[in-house]
Amino acid sequence: MPSTSSPVVDIHTHMYPPEYVKILESRSEIPLIRRFKGAKDPRYIILPAEAESLDKISQDESASLPGRPVTSHYSSLAQKVHFMDTHKIDISVISLANPWLDFVAADEAGKTAEGVNQEFEAMCQQYPGRLFFFATLPLTAPQDILLAHVDFVNGLKHCRGVILGTSGLGKGLDDPALIPVFKAIAKAGLTIFLHPHYGLPSEVWGPRSAEYGHVLPLALGFPLETTIAVARMYLAGVFDEVPDLRMLLAHSGGTLPFLAGRIESCVVHDGHLVREGKVGPQRRTVWQVLKEQIYLDAVIYSEIGLKAAIDASGVDRLMFGTDHPFFPPLQSDEQGEWESMTWNKEAVEKALGSGSDEVKQVMGGNAAKILRLSEEA
Amino acid sequence: MPSTSSPVVDIHTHMYPPEYVKILESRSEIPLIRRFKGAKDPRYIILPAEAESLDKISQDESASLPGRPVTSHYSSLAQKVHFMDTHKIDISVISLANPWLDFVAADEAGKTAEGVNQEFEAMCQQYPGRLFFFATLPLTAPQDILLAHVDFVNGLKHCRGVILGTSGLGKGLDDPALIPVFKAIAKAGLTIFLHPHYGLPSEVWGPRSAEYGHVLPLALGFPLETTIAVARMYLAGVFDEVPDLRMLLAHSGGTLPFLAGRIESCVVHDGHLVREGKVGPQRRTVWQVLKEQIYLDAVIYSEIGLKAAIDASGVDRLMFGTDHPFFPPLQSDEQGEWESMTWNKEAVEKALGSGSDEVKQVMGGNAAKILRLSEEA
Repeated sequence: MPSTSSPVVDIHTHMYPPEYVKILESRSEIPLIRRFKGAKDPRYIILPAEAESLDKISQDESASLPGRPVTSHYSSLAQKVHFMDTHKIDISVISLANPWLDFVAADEAGKTAEGVNQEFEAMCQQYPGRLFFFATLPLTAPQDILLAHVDFVNGLKHCRGVILGTSGLGKGLDDPALIPVFKAIAKAGLTIFLHPHYGLPSEVWGPRSAEYGHVLPLALGFPLETTIAVARMYLAGVFDEVPDLRMLLAHSGGTLPFLAGRIESCVVHDGHLVREGKVGPQRRTVWQVLKEQIYLDAVIYSEIGLKAAIDASGVDRLMFGTDHPFFPPLQSDEQGEWESMTWNKEAVEKALGSGSDEVKQVMGGNAAKILRLSEEA
Repeated sequence: MPSTSSPVVDIHTHMYPPEYVKILESRSEIPLIRRFKGAKDPRYIILPAEAESLDKISQDESASLPGRPVTSHYSSLAQKVHFMDTHKIDISVISLANPWLDFVAADEAGKTAEGVNQEFEAMCQQYPGRLFFFATLPLTAPQDILLAHVDFVNGLKHCRGVILGTSGLGKGLDDPALIPVFKAIAKAGLTIFLHPHYGLPSEVWGPRSAEYGHVLPLALGFPLETTIAVARMYLAGVFDEVPDLRMLLAHSGGTLPFLAGRIESCVVHDGHLVREGKVGPQRRTVWQVLKEQIYLDAVIYSEIGLKAAIDASGVDRLMFGTDHPFFPPLQSDEQGEWESMTWNKEAVEKALGSGSDEVKQVMGGNAAKILRLSEEA
């Protein structure tokens, strides 16, 4: 257990527990896990472009295998704790990685979610004080099962929120049918961790995209997806309708801190919205929502983006994260330091001044307070 | 002519000269200009969603007309100068607005571009010292005509660059067939003003998008389009292959300053790029390109985004702009002050300290130097 009063907390860190790996191994469509002859680790195939190449590849050329290797970093809790120790992370708030249970059949979703969430709770119990989790919801299940599941996860001792993608019930997060779900989550005092998965339609990457590896869908598709999802929620009035909604946005809000001014300008200059009376003195601005209902992680890999995130949301609303086990080091031992972690840590120190109280807030103090990480076990 | 040594310069300001309006009026597909019975001004229909409603609307309900009114702000030079005087803008670098000549048939493009660019040159000559322009290229024309046109516009006294969309010759700006065009532009010492038009595929806005006016395609689609286009150029090595290329990005780079860190991280962690040897000591980072080959406008409507732009590119590479005649005030006289201008001006002052030398740089000093606006006439 951390001895310091201001722990280092990683709120963006994923796990693939065995139950979930089994589901992925049984699938023939993305997302799926597949083993290839001669390759040490099975491969996790997640992007449409990777799936396209799946049938073409020769099974023994490990250099050109699609997707990413499912190393022990994906599913081994010991490896997660090793990563935490290596990087001096006191507490991790783990979550299932995308695409969660978005693809599970309606009649199986409730049961699958229960299994996965119980597995997460059991993992947390193995390392008292060091692990908490964001639960996974059975979004494809009938609404009564879905709402009952919010109560179920709220009853799990180490659950502090739910991780959600942007598809919602299939129509996005501005779907009115989601309002009861958001209300139930808010009433339970759970934080939503909004995380991208679907990116953008692949045509936007152009005819040469295969030459660029996964850079475009990961570097741009993910944050743009998050930005669009939150903007749609804002325009639909979700944040007004569920005033207690608290939402942590992955990757420092996608691009929301940078674009909030443009969104505001487009709103107040929109003839349609003005005529409909949606632009009036009662309207809460994007800036207000950012400072009152949104939290941002610090997974942005540069102090320039991080400063914008801090200015937009407030230094008391930023929370450090690593995105482990994604972005492993390619040219050194995966058991050592990961640049994807150190870049984000250095960004916090550069933006806020190494050793400052504000660094401590972002590196863990905020998360401990917002996610109640001292109430434990 | 401005008496001050540091003029206020607007480098993002569009015109629809009569020649171009005629082309748009003759069209039946977007982009088009159409007149409606009972409406004072014709309407400019530019977005796919607006076109969809075009056939459904009753022709006398001006409240629900699609698109935006083509007021005198679009085509009257006197109105442009009135706007400049109202907002104490000394010099404007005017450009044709999107989608330029992207839709013109191959055999007409050269002649149309010549007409439009001569019209721009003639406008500039009417207000010596106060107007310069970014020319329009006939991108659909055969390459010899296109390349000859770069020479042609470079011979026009007030031309300081070319405005380009993201479609290039139809395959995006990472198309190898564009390299000779970029080289010709760079050799001529012209700056490319990269401006969005196509946004993102409309499915990303979801089933409720009609309720949100034009906010999503304008506030998000435009900047995301720009970001994707530049990232594709970067990954294709265009900035390395044409080292003299100088590119001014609309809307403070879309989202590039905010996402540059994530792009860098995704590049160095990409197995494909690493195996191909594209990640090595010789690689120029996105940060280097931002500081050496990219300029950003200051059309971002908030000091938070603007600070990120300044930090990413350097205070000597930011240039003020207004986006006039778009985003007119909806609830006051269009002849007075425009909030869309004052928000951007205030953002510069808040980010850099009212009255500072750096404010003068961004408000005009940089543009005067970079675009050679004292060499005149």
